[in-house]
Amino acid sequence: MYRALASRALRAKSLCDTKSSTVLASFTSSRLNHSIPFATVDAEEISGAHPAEVQSFVQGKWIGSSNYNTLLDPLNGEPFIKVAEVDESGVQPFIESLAQCPKHGLHNPFKSPERYLLYGDISTKAAHMLALPNVSDFFTRLIQRVAPKSYQQAAGEVFVTRKFLENFCGDQVRFLARSFAVPGNHLGQQSHGYRWPYGPVTIVTPFNFPLEIPLLQLMGALYMGNKPLLKVDSKVSIVMEQMMRLLHYCGLPVEDVDFINSDGKTMNKILLEADPRMTLFTGSSRVAEKLALDLKGRIRLEDAGFDWKVLGPDVQEVDYVAWVCDQDAYACSGQKCSAQSMLFVHENWAKTPLLSKLKELAGRRKLEDLTIGPVLTFTTEAMLEHMENLLKIQGSKLLFGGKPLKNHSIPSIYGALEPTAVYVPIEEILKDTKTYELVTKEIFGPFQIVTEYKKDQLPLVLDALERMHAHLTAAVVSNDPIFIQANPFTIINQSINLLTIF
Amino acid sequence: MYRALASRALRAKSLCDTKSSTVLASFTSSRLNHSIPFATVDAEEISGAHPAEVQSFVQGKWIGSSNYNTLLDPLNGEPFIKVAEVDESGVQPFIESLAQCPKHGLHNPFKSPERYLLYGDISTKAAHMLALPNVSDFFTRLIQRVAPKSYQQAAGEVFVTRKFLENFCGDQVRFLARSFAVPGNHLGQQSHGYRWPYGPVTIVTPFNFPLEIPLLQLMGALYMGNKPLLKVDSKVSIVMEQMMRLLHYCGLPVEDVDFINSDGKTMNKILLEADPRMTLFTGSSRVAEKLALDLKGRIRLEDAGFDWKVLGPDVQEVDYVAWVCDQDAYACSGQKCSAQSMLFVHENWAKTPLLSKLKELAGRRKLEDLTIGPVLTFTTEAMLEHMENLLKIQGSKLLFGGKPLKNHSIPSIYGALEPTAVYVPIEEILKDTKTYELVTKEIFGPFQIVTEYKKDQLPLVLDALERMHAHLTAAVVSNDPIFIQANPFTIINQSINLLTIF
Amino acid sequence: MYRALASRALRAKSLCDTKSSTVLASFTSSRLNHSIPFATVDAEEISGAHPAEVQSFVQGKWIGSSNYNTLLDPLNGEPFIKVAEVDESGVQPFIESLAQCPKHGLHNPFKSPERYLLYGDISTKAAHMLALPNVSDFFTRLIQRVAPKSYQQAAGEVFVTRKFLENFCGDQVRFLARSFAVPGNHLGQQSHGYRWPYGPVTIVTPFNFPLEIPLLQLMGALYMGNKPLLKVDSKVSIVMEQMMRLLHYCGLPVEDVDFINSDGKTMNKILLEADPRMTLFTGSSRVAEKLALDLKGRIRLEDAGFDWKVLGPDVQEVDYVAWVCDQDAYACSGQKCSAQSMLFVHENWAKTPLLSKLKELAGRRKLEDLTIGPVLTFTTEAMLEHMENLLKIQGSKLLFGGKPLKNHSIPSIYGALEPTAVYVPIEEILKDTKTYELVTKEIFGPFQIVTEYKKDQLPLVLDALERMHAHLTAAVVSNDPIFIQANPFTIINQSINLLTIF
Amino acid sequence: MYRALASRALRAKSLCDTKSSTVLASFTSSRLNHSIPFATVDAEEISGAHPAEVQSFVQGKWIGSSNYNTLLDPLNGEPFIKVAEVDESGVQPFIESLAQCPKHGLHNPFKSPERYLLYGDISTKAAHMLALPNVSDFFTRLIQRVAPKSYQQAAGEVFVTRKFLENFCGDQVRFLARSFAVPGNHLGQQSHGYRWPYGPVTIVTPFNFPLEIPLLQLMGALYMGNKPLLKVDSKVSIVMEQMMRLLHYCGLPVEDVDFINSDGKTMNKILLEADPRMTLFTGSSRVAEKLALDLKGRIRLEDAGFDWKVLGPDVQEVDYVAWVCDQDAYACSGQKCSAQSMLFVHENWAKTPLLSKLKELAGRRKLEDLTIGPVLTFTTEAMLEHMENLLKIQGSKLLFGGKPLKNHSIPSIYGALEPTAVYVPIEEILKDTKTYELVTKEIFGPFQIVTEYKKDQLPLVLDALERMHAHLTAAVVSNDPIFIQANPFTIINQSINLLTIF
Repeated sequence: MYRALASRALRAKSLCDTKSSTVLASFTSSRLNHSIPFATVDAEEISGAHPAEVQSFVQGKWIGSSNYNTLLDPLNGEPFIKVAEVDESGVQPFIESLAQCPKHGLHNPFKSPERYLLYGDISTKAAHMLALPNVSDFFTRLIQRVAPKSYQQAAGEVFVTRKFLENFCGDQVRFLARSFAVPGNHLGQQSHGYRWPYGPVTIVTPFNFPLEIPLLQLMGALYMGNKPLLKVDSKVSIVMEQMMRLLHYCGLPVEDVDFINSDGKTMNKILLEADPRMTLFTGSSRVAEKLALDLKGRIRLEDAGFDWKVLGPDVQEVDYVAWVCDQDAYACSGQKCSAQSMLFVHENWAKTPLLSKLKELAGRRKLEDLTIGPVLTFTTEAMLEHMENLLKIQGSKLLFGGKPLKNHSIPSIYGALEPTAVYVPIEEILKDTKTYELVTKEIFGPFQIVTEYKKDQLPLVLDALERMHAHLTAAVVSNDPIFIQANPFTIINQSINLLTIF
Repeated sequence: MYRALASRALRAKSLCDTKSSTVLASFTSSRLNHSIPFATVDAEEISGAHPAEVQSFVQGKWIGSSNYNTLLDPLNGEPFIKVAEVDESGVQPFIESLAQCPKHGLHNPFKSPERYLLYGDISTKAAHMLALPNVSDFFTRLIQRVAPKSYQQAAGEVFVTRKFLENFCGDQVRFLARSFAVPGNHLGQQSHGYRWPYGPVTIVTPFNFPLEIPLLQLMGALYMGNKPLLKVDSKVSIVMEQMMRLLHYCGLPVEDVDFINSDGKTMNKILLEADPRMTLFTGSSRVAEKLALDLKGRIRLEDAGFDWKVLGPDVQEVDYVAWVCDQDAYACSGQKCSAQSMLFVHENWAKTPLLSKLKELAGRRKLEDLTIGPVLTFTTEAMLEHMENLLKIQGSKLLFGGKPLKNHSIPSIYGALEPTAVYVPIEEILKDTKTYELVTKEIFGPFQIVTEYKKDQLPLVLDALERMHAHLTAAVVSNDPIFIQANPFTIINQSINLLTIF
Repeated sequence: MYRALASRALRAKSLCDTKSSTVLASFTSSRLNHSIPFATVDAEEISGAHPAEVQSFVQGKWIGSSNYNTLLDPLNGEPFIKVAEVDESGVQPFIESLAQCPKHGLHNPFKSPERYLLYGDISTKAAHMLALPNVSDFFTRLIQRVAPKSYQQAAGEVFVTRKFLENFCGDQVRFLARSFAVPGNHLGQQSHGYRWPYGPVTIVTPFNFPLEIPLLQLMGALYMGNKPLLKVDSKVSIVMEQMMRLLHYCGLPVEDVDFINSDGKTMNKILLEADPRMTLFTGSSRVAEKLALDLKGRIRLEDAGFDWKVLGPDVQEVDYVAWVCDQDAYACSGQKCSAQSMLFVHENWAKTPLLSKLKELAGRRKLEDLTIGPVLTFTTEAMLEHMENLLKIQGSKLLFGGKPLKNHSIPSIYGALEPTAVYVPIEEILKDTKTYELVTKEIFGPFQIVTEYKKDQLPLVLDALERMHAHLTAAVVSNDPIFIQANPFTIINQSINLLTIF
Repeated sequence: MYRALASRALRAKSLCDTKSSTVLASFTSSRLNHSIPFATVDAEEISGAHPAEVQSFVQGKWIGSSNYNTLLDPLNGEPFIKVAEVDESGVQPFIESLAQCPKHGLHNPFKSPERYLLYGDISTKAAHMLALPNVSDFFTRLIQRVAPKSYQQAAGEVFVTRKFLENFCGDQVRFLARSFAVPGNHLGQQSHGYRWPYGPVTIVTPFNFPLEIPLLQLMGALYMGNKPLLKVDSKVSIVMEQMMRLLHYCGLPVEDVDFINSDGKTMNKILLEADPRMTLFTGSSRVAEKLALDLKGRIRLEDAGFDWKVLGPDVQEVDYVAWVCDQDAYACSGQKCSAQSMLFVHENWAKTPLLSKLKELAGRRKLEDLTIGPVLTFTTEAMLEHMENLLKIQGSKLLFGGKPLKNHSIPSIYGALEPTAVYVPIEEILKDTKTYELVTKEIFGPFQIVTEYKKDQLPLVLDALERMHAHLTAAVVSNDPIFIQANPFTIINQSINLLTIF
């Protein structure tokens, strides 16, 4: 968890280091600059005319299906990807494959230790592949096609994934399996602690980071000897399908991972029948709760959150803070797990041009470069309806946005909304439970609540924060030590669970 | 977890070090040898004639109730303890008390750091108290009265509890709150990791270790800044009720912990209304699953397990191994979480006097010194019925025991059975799912399954082990490196969750 | 080292917690409140009329000598302690005793692991003893008699020593011996790391912390299985001689430590002949260099340092900063290893009453309560001469102090000087090497240099700091992030080496 | 140290993974297979006719000298490398360059944190370069030219160096700079621990591992913010001179490292005048002691050792043990720091064909493939004289070898001896100090002592081991737990100091 935490925390502004890529390019063959040895699709050419097909992988083989889930291009509505989904008649090979892994795993500190080194090598090679400009560009563009975000944001996802792999080069995988011992009570006795795999596990991941979330979780599970069955949201699974091919090219044993495309009902059937020893689920709270019940607690959850930022009394660097707020709220069209949902503005900040700068920055976002784009889990109507409900609260007002995007061909199953901010008075937010729940409802899109507080209203802010149950990220913008220490906010760092812990 | 793991792993034979107690005694006043300043009961004198009363504690005050749960003395059936249970009309003070703790806890690395030192002091003083012979004896005898086990076993529980407290003397509590930081991407940026409390939490613990389990879990939660509400199984809660008084005497702030006696329905109501940020539950799988659902996953579970031991091909030290097997299966009348439920005997061992020694050692156990005693969660009839079902399996036979205890006054709500072992052929165990589930049903009492395997039947043993889902402890008795390496059994160390983890 | 570091760093204002001592007292016998079972002297009654005698300890026995080193009471010059010093004719038993310990130590993770638990017990008992008010008072007064400092300072030394022992109660000693393993290249291979003792070692400690330095170093060495020969500066060795008796009383095996009083020449002979596998030396650089040569590098050094404090541009809490500066410069009459030798004052601070407050606080120090007292390694004349040399530097001046103490009977072999501060202009300090070396000469007494710098003279300050070779502590008083980040001073935490590292 | 330890411990049989190299080759351009962009020499073509020149590097520039040290090819005596050595007139630029680095280093957790990432990138690129078959072959052959050893041994050195670099890819350098904090005594106080550089440092390394030792030590120093001046034994410095060019090619800032060729006297002058804050010296004890004195202890030493192996009573896998013994004694012509100097054979092993197998394996070593080759620090005569002295000991005898190599053109300044083993009776070894010192004199060449012991002579073996002062590696070949536990040998793992520790 630590490494993921660190990677994540440091990711924000890690741009794709193009200078270093250039240097690396000089190390590599010209052949690679023109084709990609593992890839079966061309990210640019996927279209209604040339649809791509996504397969599943089980027991060492790629398999198709007669059952296709056809995806619409989020930018123009063309049917552009056909996902061959496994239905209930096809689950048996997946169940059998999981069953072939014993609960002591494919390796552990006593069994097949050479596999720790193998995974160090796979990571080294895969990291090097992702550092090649054409491979990095391939995945960046593929991400953009299915989870529209700016080139910089998508390239950042590829970059973080590469850095994760670099962190596990050489001996680092086996260092992760470091055990300890403590002297016992008498001659010959020691107390040992080992990092042990679960054995057969499943990983279920969402649409918003098609490469980073599944790859990090998958590799973490593999490093420690688990055999994962991976299911990525079908809307974006083409990215990991291609990444699986890269991993195989870099030496991943084909028996080690299965990869499935299916609907939720089929996946649920597999989970119940295969009874994996652990499931790592990243996604909606609703599904998470059902799975927790079905799997009798053998699950780790990464669910959603309502993320907030508090601007303290000491005003400083207004331009920079405005830029960060804009990025946190609207990058990836507000579809990061960590996207800012609510901004608490101290009265001292309210006197600055902060809000007008926010409006200006939001206004620069445009569909052409995907700095604003389709929302994959809320329709335009749903977001507008939520906005209308908020605007019925006394004293609330629209700060900016609030209109559907224009001149686009985003299909109606997806949302298309301008970056939007709604102001709600702090007193109203806390007025009653119903209002509080309305205001703190998570909208996974380019939408945030803004409120202001006076010096003596800090207790209201603290009360509002205290009542939130799920929040992944939280920020306090202040260097005032009295403000920070006297009011210890809960700081929750976002973490990505890795199936590596005993 | 690490510390608990170590303590546990090393506990097995750590007897109460009477020599060191004697030395300590010479440091201490004679007054203390005759009375115990915090105690409100006398462990020896509790009886039908002089029943003890157990109270709850909330918002800094001990409270009674009009609603008594009267416990029968497990050794003679006399109504000897009256537990004042909170009913649904009394839950409000507990809910309010939990609500007073914010989700950033009573302390954390930024808030009230002096409280880490306070808990170092409380641990130092409480450890010293438990090292006093009369206090150690008081808790040992009190444990014996409600969870009958031998003096040595009960004293061992007090000893382990003391060692845990000694491990958190001085600065060790604040060392537990050690944070880290990693350099960031640019000037002024660092990535920090802190150990953070949950805030309001609940702890629910079972009957079999009335002192050790709740005390370790309680202190772990307190060390890191949580505010716990503690509920111990009413059958044994008198032990922790007295321990709460000791902790208050040693400086525990009265606002920091609430302590409740109630039935499960009332406790469930509190959990649903107070909505604690984490619950640590140790107990039956049935209740655990219901709680996991009610609490939407905000729970950590310590449930039951079916524990096994495999004797490998290399025979050695038959006497010692027999002694360990007897202790593991029948100490505490088989009511340790880690009690051995099944013994796999290699044919080489079958040729030794091992089984006859086991029978002999079991035969020495007697009610007088509580080396065998009441079973608190199974009646005699239930255990006998299970035995009868097992004996219907082809080839199975009773090895020893199998009869109700004689000449006792254990009330019929409890079980009273001789140490019992039933032999079942390895082939039959694996014959079908129904038989497998019957054989591996956990009986929390002095009851074990024994089976034998030939050299070429090792795959059957591995298959049997692989199919078990819940097991806390597992042992392989062999120094044969080929046997161990070629057949990597799953080794699951028993751990006690502590609410100390971010 | 970490623990020592933490203890040290946190020690500054940890007063003897009298409230907690009182509580502990109620746990303990009245007998102990009146006599101390292990002590052979009475701290109050040592005098010319009733001189105390200090012995050595070797091969399990206390031994005297015909060769006495008679110490003068630092407060009145009376011959009050007779140290029986071993001369060259008596070294053989010490050499033989060291030779009896093999280079794999008295214990290690494979040998006698029960001794880790033994040392956990010894620490628990010794910590408890030091928590008894009469024992704490005994050592506090004994320290004051030989290393005059205020009661609070001496009690603080006893308190820190107790906290160190509390940190190693229970299982903590064995946790210190935690080993690790990393999976190897192939089946059956692992790479292990163990914490291993040196075996026979020597520890040589100075006069200024008669209890804390030798006890922490001694216990650290013992915990990990070394057999130490301990030599404390004869001027103060009575304190550790009594502590040895306390440790024996608490269960320290008499074979584990030898304790010697001797002159340097004799000790050198032992070191050369016994050839211990490691020596830990705390003391003057001159002796340290000779030992490094004689012992061919098998030595760890804690030598002296010239410690500085820089006040940055942001003025705040002048009273508090003045109080800290006074404590850092003059507590223990400036004879802490960490005593402030030089203060750099930003021009913004120069405009505040800081310097007048410093003068006022220094003026309150008086011989009666030992807030100022004898200097054990510099005579009055030597310090005055150094001051005169400084005052010859152009622009320098005496800020306060600079006179011999009056109305005292401190013998002339010791120093007796008022708390003194000399101002030297920053430009002059850096003028030439000779001046720089004069100004940064360490005076182990109540003596500091003060200088001022203007905003644009910060490079001079940095240059002055850069040129210092030995410094144990360093402080920057500023919350100005630009000041701190743009000018990264070297921060050197003071550490006490413990002979516990492989 | 830990990582180095692990790398080293696991290195033994890590062959150059040619399969993986092949895969990597397919990733890379054909251009690279024919030329090496950074190299200024061709490893194959260096000869008397085409001598290579080795330069120094200071203040960002490569520099020559008028002062050449001409090296003879160890295989044929031709003058084949001209090392431009800096003499006393040229030291000033090196001293000034070191002085430009302040004692808080080039970076630290507060200063220039982006440089931790830079070094992660440099490591990634350099590791990738070393994984390219032509680059790996280039360094392997270059090592063979100056420190003759078999291709496999030299390739192993390149492989380990690559693995070290892989271990510090991505974020791993900054993870190495992880700091910690512990809560303090009161609000606002924390105790922090940082990993801090020394600042200007020097590294001096020997001839036997021309790439691995200097590269690992250099990178460790750089990672943590030090500025090193590196001096490699001139006999082999061409390897690191080329590696410096590779590092510059991979992004190493030219100001960060200086590289010097000089004689010892000149280097000593630099050390005295530049006064680096730490020196890491790997080499002979004689020089180490002089440096320790000159540098007043600011030095870390990796000196020589007399390494032994004990074969216990349980005979097993004679062929494998013979193979390991042969490798440990004679690989790299016995010029590894860890080369086996002495073999203790239990009487049970003496009855096996072990010794005849040893002789047979030694006999297969031949100059053609450099499985035996020149000895760089002992002449043939010196080794033969030592052998003759040993053979004068009563009962000693030559087991095999003992003759100069034939048909070779190794120049007479180097040694050329067959793999040699001399038997000396255990009783004679311990007879007197003179004999003991003769037998345990380290010969850095293909030379070992063999002795035998009977069951009841184990105390003699232990005594012999106990008396050795310097030993880097030690092995016990036994799975007999009684033998191992009852006789705890000192196990000293070889470590390479890295200048990374605060």
